[in-house]
Amino acid sequence: MVSYIIRSGRVDDCEDVVRLMQKLSAHEGFADQSKISAEDLRRDGFGPDPVFQCAVLEKLFGDGTSELVGYALYFYGFCSWNGKMLYFEDLFVEREYRGMGLGVALMHKVIKMAVDRGCKCIQACVVEWNTEVRQLYRHLGIEDLTETKKYHILSFTGEKLDKFVKKESFISKDMILKADL
Amino acid sequence: MVSYIIRSGRVDDCEDVVRLMQKLSAHEGFADQSKISAEDLRRDGFGPDPVFQCAVLEKLFGDGTSELVGYALYFYGFCSWNGKMLYFEDLFVEREYRGMGLGVALMHKVIKMAVDRGCKCIQACVVEWNTEVRQLYRHLGIEDLTETKKYHILSFTGEKLDKFVKKESFISKDMILKADL
Repeated sequence: MVSYIIRSGRVDDCEDVVRLMQKLSAHEGFADQSKISAEDLRRDGFGPDPVFQCAVLEKLFGDGTSELVGYALYFYGFCSWNGKMLYFEDLFVEREYRGMGLGVALMHKVIKMAVDRGCKCIQACVVEWNTEVRQLYRHLGIEDLTETKKYHILSFTGEKLDKFVKKESFISKDMILKADL
Repeated sequence: MVSYIIRSGRVDDCEDVVRLMQKLSAHEGFADQSKISAEDLRRDGFGPDPVFQCAVLEKLFGDGTSELVGYALYFYGFCSWNGKMLYFEDLFVEREYRGMGLGVALMHKVIKMAVDRGCKCIQACVVEWNTEVRQLYRHLGIEDLTETKKYHILSFTGEKLDKFVKKESFISKDMILKADL
């Protein structure tokens, strides 16, 4: 009998999560896009001011050893249509463990936890060519806002973000604008 | 001389933010979509476990009174390509205050604060027909991931979400799956 556990990610899982994260990025066709290190995950997920949480899918062997074969990375937010929200940044299961329902089980456990905590909405992104996942999502009743409401997702990064941040003012000189954030 | 301030939203701003949120929803063509009340905002943004923050744009009158004429609602997260992220859920300025740079100034102050706190990526959504905002974003160097990388944004809500959460198991009976989240 093969045994698996879905549990909260710990700081000592970060190396494994990075390994899986790189596989996910390659699977999506963007192998060079993920620049994240285990140190980044430790700082931003397990430091004093965490901005994400993760759940891991661990395979348990008879000899007491184990291996991470999947993970979900998510964070809480707020949707102005529905309220408290959980956003799935990543959901990944290693190729040889697919087709057994483990990915949906991982998704289910995280979503159940989020709904138990008052979330009314779960959001995620998917690439258009990933028809297998898109069909699954459609089957589950997940709405594709890009199709139904023509929503586009935008990203502001790198040098262009730096340049924007360094600008001094955007308003005309006959207005006074103070900022206190 | 007209005077404005951009400041962090407070719990007593929630009624005004809901009023502006409904205007934003109507402006996007989804007037009936926002089901959020001031009580929801107070609980989810200013309670013991906040899932969002907001900034407000306030017009100051000579007699000492003031009025909220815009807001931004945002939360922190993590992007597995770039790292720590700020997600803009909403950015709105009342119609009569547009075209003066106040919306970009509001966006700039929030983004600057996020970058100062270590964010490497800002994300947001925009509806396809909102060409004015999309052109501005393009001009600023913001990448449209739906165009460039064919990303779709998905939403799981309502009865279908409830039904999914209530399911018991997704795996075959010859596997043991424990969960501890």
